[in-house]
Amino acid sequence: MTRQELQDLLEDVRSGAASAEAAQDRILQFLRQAPFEDLGFARIDHHRQVRQGFPEVIFGLGKTPDQIAAIAERIVAAGHSLLVTRTDPTAHAAVTACIPDAVFHTIARTITRPGRDPAPRGKGTVVVAAAGTADLPVAEEAAVCAEIMGNCVDRVYDVGVAGLHRLLAEHKRLTAARVIIVAAGMEGALPSVLAGLVDVPVIAVPTSIGYGASFGGIAALLGMLNSCASRVSVVNIDNGFGAACVASAINHLP
Amino acid sequence: MTRQELQDLLEDVRSGAASAEAAQDRILQFLRQAPFEDLGFARIDHHRQVRQGFPEVIFGLGKTPDQIAAIAERIVAAGHSLLVTRTDPTAHAAVTACIPDAVFHTIARTITRPGRDPAPRGKGTVVVAAAGTADLPVAEEAAVCAEIMGNCVDRVYDVGVAGLHRLLAEHKRLTAARVIIVAAGMEGALPSVLAGLVDVPVIAVPTSIGYGASFGGIAALLGMLNSCASRVSVVNIDNGFGAACVASAINHLP
Amino acid sequence: MTRQELQDLLEDVRSGAASAEAAQDRILQFLRQAPFEDLGFARIDHHRQVRQGFPEVIFGLGKTPDQIAAIAERIVAAGHSLLVTRTDPTAHAAVTACIPDAVFHTIARTITRPGRDPAPRGKGTVVVAAAGTADLPVAEEAAVCAEIMGNCVDRVYDVGVAGLHRLLAEHKRLTAARVIIVAAGMEGALPSVLAGLVDVPVIAVPTSIGYGASFGGIAALLGMLNSCASRVSVVNIDNGFGAACVASAINHLP
Amino acid sequence: MTRQELQDLLEDVRSGAASAEAAQDRILQFLRQAPFEDLGFARIDHHRQVRQGFPEVIFGLGKTPDQIAAIAERIVAAGHSLLVTRTDPTAHAAVTACIPDAVFHTIARTITRPGRDPAPRGKGTVVVAAAGTADLPVAEEAAVCAEIMGNCVDRVYDVGVAGLHRLLAEHKRLTAARVIIVAAGMEGALPSVLAGLVDVPVIAVPTSIGYGASFGGIAALLGMLNSCASRVSVVNIDNGFGAACVASAINHLP
Amino acid sequence: MTRQELQDLLEDVRSGAASAEAAQDRILQFLRQAPFEDLGFARIDHHRQVRQGFPEVIFGLGKTPDQIAAIAERIVAAGHSLLVTRTDPTAHAAVTACIPDAVFHTIARTITRPGRDPAPRGKGTVVVAAAGTADLPVAEEAAVCAEIMGNCVDRVYDVGVAGLHRLLAEHKRLTAARVIIVAAGMEGALPSVLAGLVDVPVIAVPTSIGYGASFGGIAALLGMLNSCASRVSVVNIDNGFGAACVASAINHLP
Amino acid sequence: MTRQELQDLLEDVRSGAASAEAAQDRILQFLRQAPFEDLGFARIDHHRQVRQGFPEVIFGLGKTPDQIAAIAERIVAAGHSLLVTRTDPTAHAAVTACIPDAVFHTIARTITRPGRDPAPRGKGTVVVAAAGTADLPVAEEAAVCAEIMGNCVDRVYDVGVAGLHRLLAEHKRLTAARVIIVAAGMEGALPSVLAGLVDVPVIAVPTSIGYGASFGGIAALLGMLNSCASRVSVVNIDNGFGAACVASAINHLP
Amino acid sequence: MTRQELQDLLEDVRSGAASAEAAQDRILQFLRQAPFEDLGFARIDHHRQVRQGFPEVIFGLGKTPDQIAAIAERIVAAGHSLLVTRTDPTAHAAVTACIPDAVFHTIARTITRPGRDPAPRGKGTVVVAAAGTADLPVAEEAAVCAEIMGNCVDRVYDVGVAGLHRLLAEHKRLTAARVIIVAAGMEGALPSVLAGLVDVPVIAVPTSIGYGASFGGIAALLGMLNSCASRVSVVNIDNGFGAACVASAINHLP
Amino acid sequence: MTRQELQDLLEDVRSGAASAEAAQDRILQFLRQAPFEDLGFARIDHHRQVRQGFPEVIFGLGKTPDQIAAIAERIVAAGHSLLVTRTDPTAHAAVTACIPDAVFHTIARTITRPGRDPAPRGKGTVVVAAAGTADLPVAEEAAVCAEIMGNCVDRVYDVGVAGLHRLLAEHKRLTAARVIIVAAGMEGALPSVLAGLVDVPVIAVPTSIGYGASFGGIAALLGMLNSCASRVSVVNIDNGFGAACVASAINHLP
Repeated sequence: MTRQELQDLLEDVRSGAASAEAAQDRILQFLRQAPFEDLGFARIDHHRQVRQGFPEVIFGLGKTPDQIAAIAERIVAAGHSLLVTRTDPTAHAAVTACIPDAVFHTIARTITRPGRDPAPRGKGTVVVAAAGTADLPVAEEAAVCAEIMGNCVDRVYDVGVAGLHRLLAEHKRLTAARVIIVAAGMEGALPSVLAGLVDVPVIAVPTSIGYGASFGGIAALLGMLNSCASRVSVVNIDNGFGAACVASAINHLP
Repeated sequence: MTRQELQDLLEDVRSGAASAEAAQDRILQFLRQAPFEDLGFARIDHHRQVRQGFPEVIFGLGKTPDQIAAIAERIVAAGHSLLVTRTDPTAHAAVTACIPDAVFHTIARTITRPGRDPAPRGKGTVVVAAAGTADLPVAEEAAVCAEIMGNCVDRVYDVGVAGLHRLLAEHKRLTAARVIIVAAGMEGALPSVLAGLVDVPVIAVPTSIGYGASFGGIAALLGMLNSCASRVSVVNIDNGFGAACVASAINHLP
Repeated sequence: MTRQELQDLLEDVRSGAASAEAAQDRILQFLRQAPFEDLGFARIDHHRQVRQGFPEVIFGLGKTPDQIAAIAERIVAAGHSLLVTRTDPTAHAAVTACIPDAVFHTIARTITRPGRDPAPRGKGTVVVAAAGTADLPVAEEAAVCAEIMGNCVDRVYDVGVAGLHRLLAEHKRLTAARVIIVAAGMEGALPSVLAGLVDVPVIAVPTSIGYGASFGGIAALLGMLNSCASRVSVVNIDNGFGAACVASAINHLP
Repeated sequence: MTRQELQDLLEDVRSGAASAEAAQDRILQFLRQAPFEDLGFARIDHHRQVRQGFPEVIFGLGKTPDQIAAIAERIVAAGHSLLVTRTDPTAHAAVTACIPDAVFHTIARTITRPGRDPAPRGKGTVVVAAAGTADLPVAEEAAVCAEIMGNCVDRVYDVGVAGLHRLLAEHKRLTAARVIIVAAGMEGALPSVLAGLVDVPVIAVPTSIGYGASFGGIAALLGMLNSCASRVSVVNIDNGFGAACVASAINHLP
Repeated sequence: MTRQELQDLLEDVRSGAASAEAAQDRILQFLRQAPFEDLGFARIDHHRQVRQGFPEVIFGLGKTPDQIAAIAERIVAAGHSLLVTRTDPTAHAAVTACIPDAVFHTIARTITRPGRDPAPRGKGTVVVAAAGTADLPVAEEAAVCAEIMGNCVDRVYDVGVAGLHRLLAEHKRLTAARVIIVAAGMEGALPSVLAGLVDVPVIAVPTSIGYGASFGGIAALLGMLNSCASRVSVVNIDNGFGAACVASAINHLP
Repeated sequence: MTRQELQDLLEDVRSGAASAEAAQDRILQFLRQAPFEDLGFARIDHHRQVRQGFPEVIFGLGKTPDQIAAIAERIVAAGHSLLVTRTDPTAHAAVTACIPDAVFHTIARTITRPGRDPAPRGKGTVVVAAAGTADLPVAEEAAVCAEIMGNCVDRVYDVGVAGLHRLLAEHKRLTAARVIIVAAGMEGALPSVLAGLVDVPVIAVPTSIGYGASFGGIAALLGMLNSCASRVSVVNIDNGFGAACVASAINHLP
Repeated sequence: MTRQELQDLLEDVRSGAASAEAAQDRILQFLRQAPFEDLGFARIDHHRQVRQGFPEVIFGLGKTPDQIAAIAERIVAAGHSLLVTRTDPTAHAAVTACIPDAVFHTIARTITRPGRDPAPRGKGTVVVAAAGTADLPVAEEAAVCAEIMGNCVDRVYDVGVAGLHRLLAEHKRLTAARVIIVAAGMEGALPSVLAGLVDVPVIAVPTSIGYGASFGGIAALLGMLNSCASRVSVVNIDNGFGAACVASAINHLP
Repeated sequence: MTRQELQDLLEDVRSGAASAEAAQDRILQFLRQAPFEDLGFARIDHHRQVRQGFPEVIFGLGKTPDQIAAIAERIVAAGHSLLVTRTDPTAHAAVTACIPDAVFHTIARTITRPGRDPAPRGKGTVVVAAAGTADLPVAEEAAVCAEIMGNCVDRVYDVGVAGLHRLLAEHKRLTAARVIIVAAGMEGALPSVLAGLVDVPVIAVPTSIGYGASFGGIAALLGMLNSCASRVSVVNIDNGFGAACVASAINHLP
């Protein structure tokens, strides 16, 4: 119920076109009304595209293929873009049964299908940088998600700090970005070094790559939180999707 | 040495206006040349304003008042804006001995003085939200830093999630922001709730407010890293300055 | 041996109806007497229903199907209600061999069968709220346990804080509760927000849902322990059963 | 705005007693209206007593004596009961300047003064048990808070598990409680043992008492979260106030 | 009430020498009777010497000098040996006001005074070994406590593993022990090496000596728990008193 | 080389029965001589029985069945008792190929076979107590190891603190022990309660039983290290073998 | 481009043998030129042998057999020595398809093949010591890596501190080393003891061997970081390769 | 007793120049003889210079000025170089009372005085690099210690990775080193970047500089342990002395 609808309704009451009881019901119902669809095991938030620029995303981990397919079908039916993260080929098979043209991105472990109204284009380029080959699943999750959210993505991979020349060789591409996502495991030093070379926001994604005292990504996480380079903010370990959301929000600022 | 300068130099060699030896010296010297001033105990990075939009900032913790004053004097002498964080009245006294109009912000524990060329204005407003009264030192550090970096700042304080009506009452100011900084301690839930209400980037700053199992801000930090709301990225515990840097970089995007 | 029985016994000694030796034996034996049944690998506490309102519960984890079935049989034989938690279909098959009408709750991973004397009804309703779909196994464990313990249960699922309208839409059901159980993973913010909306006790159950810096539920646990909303107390990660016990004890208070 | 007020307002519009514009303004204003008083550095929630049975409480830690006194004065002015926790004699002196009869509880580090309308009485007794002498500050915080919230409190102190006879000697007082708060440090075993003796809810408060591997209360916290006795829920380390809130909410259930 | 006393009582009832009522009272009273003295803030366990071979010990940390003196006076009045740990000269001054011959051990931070009936002598010698000079406060606490508990103590100090010859030079004294206490900080390797040289029980006490990654004794604690030498058991960080209790219990075995 | 042998050797040199060169060789060789057998991948310490009262024990974890069998064969060939811990039926099959009468203890996951010279008998009884059924593998490892080491063992199982009557019912067996091993998981409170009831040394073994905030036994470990009952020392999580070694060393003290 | 090449180029410009444009291109291209080969998923650093004495090494964990084989082929094609760590027989099979004489080291889980120009010989011997049999995989990784890097390696295994005589028996081999690598798990005390016996650098490698409170190698790591013996430095848990790199760099110092 | 002395002694026995008894005494005494001086509270290891190239060093933390002075006097009396770390002006005053020319290094918090026989010179230069101004105390401790141990030291300070040009400007000095010590706090990335630029061993010293999630140096420590650059080994947090010992041992290799 928009402000205009409220104004109209009250005018109707004044003019007698609507009874006070009906108006009361309407207002109370609006307050109760949930802008979501209840599947029993999940409430799909169809208003999210309006509120936040991209429809609800399906986090695949811990959901059955059938649950994923059921939610996916309703999202597509509503005309929205489909994005499933942390998923696998089995879930993809279940989804394609009802949405034949849904695409599975192997490294990114992600399913996508553009909606009726594709996401508006962001203003610039999102660079996704990765320190090592093992960080690619997280980097690709970020890249694939950023693309479906309407961003032009440039991938700059295998540019870890132990061989600075590999990073410096890509200086031009880095400075062309509007926002940069950096995925790195082990000591997680890449965002610090990279942020010293550019003047745009840098979103650091620690990855769980490493062993021993990497503690499943904690070392990289702490390194990024303590970055001596300002302009670095951090998302959860392995959270390529979250990094893409932040980067896309920045890239879509007018 | 810009690309143009290199082109000119080589042309001079060709024309005989410069000797090959001189040109070699010049190029080698450029590669060696450090764009900083060496005070013995610190190297002031005078090129940072050019590279990253704001001059070097003095992190006061662990520096003596004399060291702070010495660095501050050189920064101001270079015409840059002065920003000292994590400082105190003693350091302020030392600074005002040579920079009389430097201002001390009590709650933010910060010294500022605009430079000859003030920072360019950001495009929109940076909202700084704080969950409770005890979070104000961190929130104010973020706000004061964002202001000296050229941002219009709107403070929305004491809007913790245990009394949702206080947050919802400020919905309009929140939606008017281009980027939002949120400082919260204890369970650190405010960024999650707030990010669900807006569509701009949210930068979460965990504070060390709390006791017992808050572990000096770890609980809030983990809460923010695990936020179920996307578009939230996180900086270090109590790092109001870092949040301001990220927010300012976002707000200054063209 | 009640106070009355002791009085009678001593009277018998005085009157000669019982010898001093026999009385001594009887008293000593009572002190030794364990109100439990010893199966060799376990001691079933048959007096627990008297002492604490519900018979001994079988914690399935780490017990073989045969052990579970053997203990279950003795509990049912004593006329008590049967409740097995953290179990699976294999154990259920073993149990149904001797207790054909024992029911397996798939999501809750729980076996139940009401006893001869069903648990007395609690005074009000226990609301079980869950933040996301992935929290359902824990929420359902709480719900199923609370039901067999004699409580009317109302399930309010998928009401995480990132979409406040979903929670606010259920305000009425929440305020109708006598006690609320809240299961949430990731940042675990739901209990804080929810406790600000009601005036009854809230029992928070952190779930191990999440990844990276959720550390198997630690982030949610810390968030709940540091809740800025009072009236929130916490049980162990994934401990839906424990939450049900606390809620049922509260709901059965006269 | 109650449902009745809305009904009346709409009736007024229908009858012409109120214009549609005025009605719209009134409804919109209600949605915006914040039921709190803004002191600049804090927003006092005067509606909390209505919503949750007890007025806003002042958490003293990190607030100046002047801030505490200012907030205290407004709470008392509104006729509410005053409760300040984690405070000290200096703050008490500041408070008594405007509220002469405010009482300071030394061990509990708490200031109280009953309001115009004292809190309604809870139905039963709240037992506050403490394992050792060193746990008394936390236990007393719980006891003093529970009393001002309208509960009859029975203190059972120095009943740690290393000397079981001290605990068993108080069996009668324990079983007379409607709800029990247990404060314990070191290994935090008292709630487990105590909960096995009674059938009411037990709220465990780990204290930071101990040294070495007690890690400031973590050992006790973990012990309580892993209690093998069901019906135990836990609050934050040293959070006597929180335990009192939970216990009082339980004790005030009809 | 011993088994004999019970037998006698019942015989008295049978013979009429005692009424059944009196006998009942006596038995019930015994069950209720607490073998402790209640000072209000503490319950002194006067039966501990009977049950466990040494009277109650005063843990000084967190108690005021007056509280310590009050408890000390009652213990001495009961004829028991006095032992106060984790204390200081101020508390000693308060104690000597009523117990003039109480001795303060500076390094051990301990007060002692033998009781009327000194502790029985243990069978052998307790060796207290320390890795470095900085571990002496903990080692001395162990040594002083073991002595007042009736043990012959041999101190072997500054025998850390980085200079094996210092340890091997004391091989003879080590093998003469009935039980060995080892205090060590930093990496805590001394118990492992020492336990390989002897065949008696070794009680390891990690100390909080160290810095950085010693984490206040955690490194030493973990090292000792993971000792590749069997026959090593561990007490809490800095818990010299606890080690003495264990060693004394072992040394007093018949 | 004993002191006597050295004396004889030097006398031989003096008398000319041995050359100085030969004597030098002999002494140097003794200093080099390793009292162990080198299998290439392991050095079997055949002197351990002499030095420490029990031969070398095979820790099965991480060794192949063939490695275990090879070491076992040499230990048995030397006439020693065989003890293999943390092993499984596959390794047992490999061992029985060369040692047909080696016994596998299923719950304890241990292989034993008495040697030619069985271990001398300890003076008293070792009680092995366990809190719950799930702690049996650790308790049985302790019991089986203690038995092969020459101790009379009494098992007291399923006596957790949540049902105190089960523990108190076994008071007599507990007080008959010369030393007590206590295995407990979850909050690990049993050693504290039990140590308050007896006056002999108590060796606490935390088990990894539990879930969530038990953190694989850390909660129990911390609880035991912080035990408010003195005379408790602790071994590593799940280290039943280590507890048996300590208990056996105590029980074999003359 | 060497300093000489730059000099020549500029001379050519001066003499007209090269145009200024061509020289500019050449210099700019050098600055851009990356001394690596881009396979799409990885950038092979062929200059590393020149810069750091050994070619790029393939870290096998997380790479597919095909990826490993593809990188291996290019490294061998460039004439470099091949070293693959953390790998398995499947990857070895893939590698031998194109490099038939590549060798798989089973315990070390490593593939090696010397290159055209074998690594120069180090000056002395690298001793690799291991505390127990279970540490061999890590010790062997260190030994095999050190050998392919051009070092003479002496293996001293199963010399843990619980049986000092085994270590002391190898004193001569230890003192013959130029640098010593020590692999140890559990309490990780071997480096401390060993470093007290020699005067060369000791590189400690904590292994993940152990259970319970060894926390996957953390106990050993902390023990080594807190070593009371100086001259000990530490690498990551299980990082035999890293230890070999450090040792080889030391051993190759002129 | 050297091998030659033993040979001579035995020859004397053979020739009758020494009795067998005297020889036996001499050998036994040697085995007992401790090459240290016992001050009661400390055993000074005067043979360390022979065994390990530098005399015993006094770790000042936790020692009184008098203890430091007493040990210092004996070390100097033995002709050794004096090195006291972690000390302060008060201890320096006590030391100069007996050793007037002992020097106090303010930033390094260290006392030094060369001995009669200065340490032999190392072969090359030890570079000590520091990331920021706040890391200087640790870096200076390393530098001062390395100098007194006989090394030529080159200090390269304030070259953190956020401004790469500052580090690259010192490339020449870095490549001139024989071994490099790197002190860095916060994310601790400098060793990774630096080790990629040189081919000598790099010893990383994490410092406790930072706040929030730096956890007193843990973030830097983990970053260094997980360095993606090989040839990096790590010492304890703030352990400049230990780094100097390792570097000096490397630099003194022939």
